[in-house]
Amino acid sequence: MEIGVIGLGRMGGNIARRLMKAGHRCVVFDVDSKARDTLAREGAKEAASLEGVAAALTGKPRAVWIMLPAGRITEETVEHFARILASGDIIIDGGNSFYKDDIRRAKRLAERGIHYVDCGTSGGVWGLDRGYCLMIGGPKEAVGHLDPIFAALAPGLGSIAKTPGRAKYDQRAERGYIHAGPAGAGHFVKMIHNGIEYGLMQAYAEGFDILRTKESAELPEEERFTLNIPDIAEVWRRGSVISSWLLDLSAAALAKDPQLKSFSGFVEDSGEGRWTIEAAIEQAVPAEVLSSALYTRFRSRQEHTFAEKMLSAMRLGFGGHIEGGEPGAQTSDRATAQNAAE
Amino acid sequence: MEIGVIGLGRMGGNIARRLMKAGHRCVVFDVDSKARDTLAREGAKEAASLEGVAAALTGKPRAVWIMLPAGRITEETVEHFARILASGDIIIDGGNSFYKDDIRRAKRLAERGIHYVDCGTSGGVWGLDRGYCLMIGGPKEAVGHLDPIFAALAPGLGSIAKTPGRAKYDQRAERGYIHAGPAGAGHFVKMIHNGIEYGLMQAYAEGFDILRTKESAELPEEERFTLNIPDIAEVWRRGSVISSWLLDLSAAALAKDPQLKSFSGFVEDSGEGRWTIEAAIEQAVPAEVLSSALYTRFRSRQEHTFAEKMLSAMRLGFGGHIEGGEPGAQTSDRATAQNAAE
Amino acid sequence: MEIGVIGLGRMGGNIARRLMKAGHRCVVFDVDSKARDTLAREGAKEAASLEGVAAALTGKPRAVWIMLPAGRITEETVEHFARILASGDIIIDGGNSFYKDDIRRAKRLAERGIHYVDCGTSGGVWGLDRGYCLMIGGPKEAVGHLDPIFAALAPGLGSIAKTPGRAKYDQRAERGYIHAGPAGAGHFVKMIHNGIEYGLMQAYAEGFDILRTKESAELPEEERFTLNIPDIAEVWRRGSVISSWLLDLSAAALAKDPQLKSFSGFVEDSGEGRWTIEAAIEQAVPAEVLSSALYTRFRSRQEHTFAEKMLSAMRLGFGGHIEGGEPGAQTSDRATAQNAAE
Amino acid sequence: MEIGVIGLGRMGGNIARRLMKAGHRCVVFDVDSKARDTLAREGAKEAASLEGVAAALTGKPRAVWIMLPAGRITEETVEHFARILASGDIIIDGGNSFYKDDIRRAKRLAERGIHYVDCGTSGGVWGLDRGYCLMIGGPKEAVGHLDPIFAALAPGLGSIAKTPGRAKYDQRAERGYIHAGPAGAGHFVKMIHNGIEYGLMQAYAEGFDILRTKESAELPEEERFTLNIPDIAEVWRRGSVISSWLLDLSAAALAKDPQLKSFSGFVEDSGEGRWTIEAAIEQAVPAEVLSSALYTRFRSRQEHTFAEKMLSAMRLGFGGHIEGGEPGAQTSDRATAQNAAE
Repeated sequence: MEIGVIGLGRMGGNIARRLMKAGHRCVVFDVDSKARDTLAREGAKEAASLEGVAAALTGKPRAVWIMLPAGRITEETVEHFARILASGDIIIDGGNSFYKDDIRRAKRLAERGIHYVDCGTSGGVWGLDRGYCLMIGGPKEAVGHLDPIFAALAPGLGSIAKTPGRAKYDQRAERGYIHAGPAGAGHFVKMIHNGIEYGLMQAYAEGFDILRTKESAELPEEERFTLNIPDIAEVWRRGSVISSWLLDLSAAALAKDPQLKSFSGFVEDSGEGRWTIEAAIEQAVPAEVLSSALYTRFRSRQEHTFAEKMLSAMRLGFGGHIEGGEPGAQTSDRATAQNAAE
Repeated sequence: MEIGVIGLGRMGGNIARRLMKAGHRCVVFDVDSKARDTLAREGAKEAASLEGVAAALTGKPRAVWIMLPAGRITEETVEHFARILASGDIIIDGGNSFYKDDIRRAKRLAERGIHYVDCGTSGGVWGLDRGYCLMIGGPKEAVGHLDPIFAALAPGLGSIAKTPGRAKYDQRAERGYIHAGPAGAGHFVKMIHNGIEYGLMQAYAEGFDILRTKESAELPEEERFTLNIPDIAEVWRRGSVISSWLLDLSAAALAKDPQLKSFSGFVEDSGEGRWTIEAAIEQAVPAEVLSSALYTRFRSRQEHTFAEKMLSAMRLGFGGHIEGGEPGAQTSDRATAQNAAE
Repeated sequence: MEIGVIGLGRMGGNIARRLMKAGHRCVVFDVDSKARDTLAREGAKEAASLEGVAAALTGKPRAVWIMLPAGRITEETVEHFARILASGDIIIDGGNSFYKDDIRRAKRLAERGIHYVDCGTSGGVWGLDRGYCLMIGGPKEAVGHLDPIFAALAPGLGSIAKTPGRAKYDQRAERGYIHAGPAGAGHFVKMIHNGIEYGLMQAYAEGFDILRTKESAELPEEERFTLNIPDIAEVWRRGSVISSWLLDLSAAALAKDPQLKSFSGFVEDSGEGRWTIEAAIEQAVPAEVLSSALYTRFRSRQEHTFAEKMLSAMRLGFGGHIEGGEPGAQTSDRATAQNAAE
Repeated sequence: MEIGVIGLGRMGGNIARRLMKAGHRCVVFDVDSKARDTLAREGAKEAASLEGVAAALTGKPRAVWIMLPAGRITEETVEHFARILASGDIIIDGGNSFYKDDIRRAKRLAERGIHYVDCGTSGGVWGLDRGYCLMIGGPKEAVGHLDPIFAALAPGLGSIAKTPGRAKYDQRAERGYIHAGPAGAGHFVKMIHNGIEYGLMQAYAEGFDILRTKESAELPEEERFTLNIPDIAEVWRRGSVISSWLLDLSAAALAKDPQLKSFSGFVEDSGEGRWTIEAAIEQAVPAEVLSSALYTRFRSRQEHTFAEKMLSAMRLGFGGHIEGGEPGAQTSDRATAQNAAE
């Protein structure tokens, strides 16, 4: 079938490519004309504006897949299409919008008969080849109509082992996409996916940190080990309980750069990790691990926090402790020597 | 080659089986004679005592693989073998011993010329078929001598994709086993493996909890979703960033029992999760996620903690708050109505 | 001076009382006529409606102090007064409103010339005698005009030691009230106050829990202590680093009920603890302790979480672990015996 | 009465001074002869060795108070006295020893008839004036014999309000010292005291951090506040729920240095914070807050952790994210622009 694809960055471009590879026709647009020229050379129909996209789509209903950063630009693009599309047409937000924005937009678009579909899209730079895991929210008819699109983007059955006992469940899940519920449900599920992703990453990260520091000169000599981290990451991929795709990626990164010297340790976070915690709080769910994973990233972007200075100020206040030290010095309280207790 | 296997529970029995399948000869012992009879019928040579095992091993050096619960029974078995084996022989502890115990034992055994090898063994009930991921500590010669044993137990290359750039690394890791370092290093790496396992499990668990409670009547109606948790677990196995073996197991469990009604929520923990945190503290590594994962299990085994009662006592003290409620009532402060602030 | 007080619950009633004791005139209203009769007998002027309050206030500008639960009822009362008050008049929200609601309200009221003042009020059931700690947001003129009210409600200098070096700072802080900034700033500061309160409470609670469980039969006999918790709480009030008002309250509660048998352990939370975490996330501040303190309360209100059942489901999946146990059984993995490793 | 005081650092010197002020006789020793000369000028009897101390003590039984850093030096001093004191004499460890060391020492000393008393001592540099909060473990007779010493060091009733309902409890607690139990119990209670101290400090620190960053340019302009942190700390001392001695110290530090520019943010930790977590783990007590407080300090002493680099490595692996940024840049994912989802 035919679909408009708006936003031809790393994700959007590959989505158009994977669709075309499956025989679908794509009308593409990006503010960067070079990006659309590239796709045009690969077989897409290029449009110079959103209006151009709408005009070039010939079928009925028309469908446009917006693949832009969450926030103002996605919002404006949805609104723009709301004005130029017609009743029955479908707008898909394939980015990482906040699910409450989906709920609001769907309601407003429904007034004009336009269907709004939110599609959480996981797969990163690997999706072109591996396929994308899709978590979809929106009205049943629209989601059903788009089924060939979703089926083409999703990984399909592949070589992944079948889960026993799934005969009674929705077979789309096995092929890598689900209709999670009404508008917002798709992005909500994707948001939790990312929240979990943060937690998993942090669990591995902490474990590797304990391995690496096992050679610390602070430890008794016979309890020190200099461990081969790349080998450990590799062996865990093989028959262990903690094998995963994130571990595969970790093993590859460590094989290339065992000390991870090419990374500063400054770690960014996206909205989805934050919204996951807000959802946990709204629903009164204890989410210690997901929260800690987020906070680690906050902390990684600062040299020192005001909180830490407060601690030193209090320590000076009650114990006369003058904090020593340069970053990296991993000793316990050296002030103790002059200051037996407290 | 030939090896003694002591302890024929779920793990030990399958280890003997996997070794025999690969053509190795096993002399087996268990306090439960039925367990050893079973293995004898499958081709093992049965011994009626540890002395019997030592006597039945014909090659030189002799090697015994102890697969017993960590703690006193493993300790006593090691000591017993220390008395009846000879210089050059090898004792392997394949269980979950604390790595500092390994260091101590290896030192003592070395005085008598006996080699001590600690082998962290991951793979659980699946190891017989999938192979075991092995993390090995001990002297190079002994580990080298046992290579055919380790190679047989490990999964081997299998169908798992190769990690790029590993040509310069130890090739054993790709086949599922590593020589991590001197005595204790194997169990140390296995211990961290289990610590990470706790963290990963908790990350998934929290995420699923937020999904499940998204239907809570406390939420505004338009923000409530009744999500199909088994389908979500399944779709995440396909092309998403968080696919893993633990997710495979979760998807299978949820397909069978979507509400997890067959589980009480009482969760045990083993020594390795605890020791991981102690190692983090000794090495001054922040391990928020691994700690929280452990604490959740502690909490799961209590109806209410003294800590929680302390909170209520303080709330009564400063605000006159009388805590209401039955477990399960997920409201925020209902006392607020009579008590506008504080 | 003269002020209307709306809402005569535990907080509002005592606020009126403390104001009258300081010589101020109060016009009081509550939907419960008994509550207003009681205050009337104590010297307040009683009104039968919000209009009655507005009419009974004779000075210019008029000021009304709303002391109602945060949420719809406060919102409606503010809106109601917005309609019946005149330019120059002042509405004070003394409850626990969300500070973003203050910002919104202040903006709307400013269009009609009405001043909006938000006043975070701490002191609980003790405020009548001890005075209330006040954190005030709003326009300078309005806050200045109300100074006699705030001064009367606040504790004053009392017997608390002066902080050295405060000569150059706002002297109101020493008397127990501050003008924190524009509308919303008062409730923001109060919100963080409550967030800290959660963290402090949880720190004590965890510590007492470790003390209490030091008699656990799981510990080696010589490491078990049966500690007198009430005595410990008391001694810490005397010269220790952790003395505080919350500890005073804890000591009193423990003296009365050393086992805290009168508390179920079910702990409620109010909006302010939740909003604190949301603020931390918006501002990218790691707030591990404040978050954990909130999550403990969430957890305390459930028998078992879905998350915990997920853990058990995974443990069964990879290790064949059947979780044992009744709540309260504090053992580590008993399944280990049949299952040496994993 | 008469007592030897070993170790004349900040704590030990003041302990001797406070005892002499109360009329007790002190025989003092320190390896630094200047320190003992100073005390001698203030009225103490100076000894040039531990033997000198033992010889100079004239009463029976003799008592020596060791006030040295926990660890080897305390251990050696205890052992030294064990050799030169006689049956019936008393050794007091007033420092911050690990309570399991106390248990071990007490057992060994008991064989020679020497009493061992462990005394957790809180009060820091303020103890000389305010008195010390004492948590004592050891045999009843020895603790009883030393009562005049403990009573002199403790703060006494002072002006602190009496806790209601304490008539039936040990009256020593009100005067600032307790006999917590057998050897080790004193230091165990002190250890938990310090664990709680970490948690309290961290709760305040996080709260102040959220206040300070409320002026962040990342927030919508109307939601930004520039708050006066010293005034807020001050006002909370007055009638609020979170008033405490640590808050008093915080207010003083902030009045002096509102930005805390004199502190690097590098925060040390002592053994007691670590041992508290180990105790929590041994006793299966969830101690989220106390753990997080410790981990913050670990993190504060590093520029970047290996864990954080692992996160970046994984992010690059699945999403092609190149982490930007200099420390201090508090943005959420800027890579998003080129990379709509994931």
